[in-house]
Amino acid sequence: MSFVTIERKILEKNDEIARQNRQLLQQHGIFSINLVSSPGAGKTTLLERTLEELGDSLRVRVVEGDVQTDFDARRIARYKVPVVQIVTHGACHLEAKLVQDALSSLPLADTDLLVIENVGNLVCPASFDLGEDLKVVLLSTTEGDDKPLKYPAMFRNAAVLVINKIDLLPYVNCDVAALRRHALEINPALRVFETSCTTRAGIPEWCAWLRAQAKRQP
Amino acid sequence: MSFVTIERKILEKNDEIARQNRQLLQQHGIFSINLVSSPGAGKTTLLERTLEELGDSLRVRVVEGDVQTDFDARRIARYKVPVVQIVTHGACHLEAKLVQDALSSLPLADTDLLVIENVGNLVCPASFDLGEDLKVVLLSTTEGDDKPLKYPAMFRNAAVLVINKIDLLPYVNCDVAALRRHALEINPALRVFETSCTTRAGIPEWCAWLRAQAKRQP
Repeated sequence: MSFVTIERKILEKNDEIARQNRQLLQQHGIFSINLVSSPGAGKTTLLERTLEELGDSLRVRVVEGDVQTDFDARRIARYKVPVVQIVTHGACHLEAKLVQDALSSLPLADTDLLVIENVGNLVCPASFDLGEDLKVVLLSTTEGDDKPLKYPAMFRNAAVLVINKIDLLPYVNCDVAALRRHALEINPALRVFETSCTTRAGIPEWCAWLRAQAKRQP
Repeated sequence: MSFVTIERKILEKNDEIARQNRQLLQQHGIFSINLVSSPGAGKTTLLERTLEELGDSLRVRVVEGDVQTDFDARRIARYKVPVVQIVTHGACHLEAKLVQDALSSLPLADTDLLVIENVGNLVCPASFDLGEDLKVVLLSTTEGDDKPLKYPAMFRNAAVLVINKIDLLPYVNCDVAALRRHALEINPALRVFETSCTTRAGIPEWCAWLRAQAKRQP
């Protein structure tokens, strides 16, 4: 049996559990996103600003994925939001089974939005469906405008791109117009937001979009 | 046959080829580093500043690893340095076999320093020995000071930590003392440099160290 066969079986098994997760979330009318990025692009901070902006307008639940530590779940728990930490102990991405287990410990009956924050990795999480409605890829301006071309799978598989840390633009070598162009070249259907978690620029627009998506669920 | 068995065999096979690479590089008296980081931490830019600073003092060869595109090899080729681009076409790390193939197209007879720039990924490349003398992990201040604790394997397996983009410290939420402390907690033997590729701070010290290492080769 070849490695490729094993890999295909792992992905097939993952996809089957992802389907079950998706069905469960849809039954509860929950809008769900899988938040992916490089380490340090600002996923957890964006989530903190999002929770502040949303206030009581959406009932949010969070699944935090990390290679190690429960730092992120502790940060989110301060916002009085139900959160489950998954520690992968070295694994480079979340899998549907881990999310399935996490969902069993979250109150789903009264939930509008589920945010799954993936492991910081711009490559591997692109291949693993978790059962979410869509992937949101976060890219910070400090990473440079060539990243969509260099890591195309993630931008191809995402529905939304959040360009974060726009407050740092005066200090870094990043052409946002080029970044947008490169990303749309890979995936013309991408919806793009620009945010700063320091100045809060773009956070209201991003949250308005989340609210609109959550309200569209049956 | 289980997935774990397959994975172990892949790593064993990789380690065998890495041993061959190491022997080849040692036979030529070449000092070699495997440069690893998140996407956008500044690996290629550090390499550009390094080549400028080293000038003719070391004969450098470069292997560029990317998921997609040959942008980085083109950037390095401007410095008139022999460079080979490896495109992994989706794979999240370099493997020893890919480096072995790349080495066969580089002039090794008159080489002091080989730099292998890995795929931007703070997780997967930690597990794959390429035959290098040591791993250098680059972490930018924009990624935050908690990363050594959240991605410990890379910091455990590296011999050197370069804290990059220190010019951005006034604008980002990063405590460098805490970053150092976290990194040394994971790996007390880490040698730490602080650099800015914009102001060139720390580049002379980093290059002096590279020169000293290269001169120590037989």
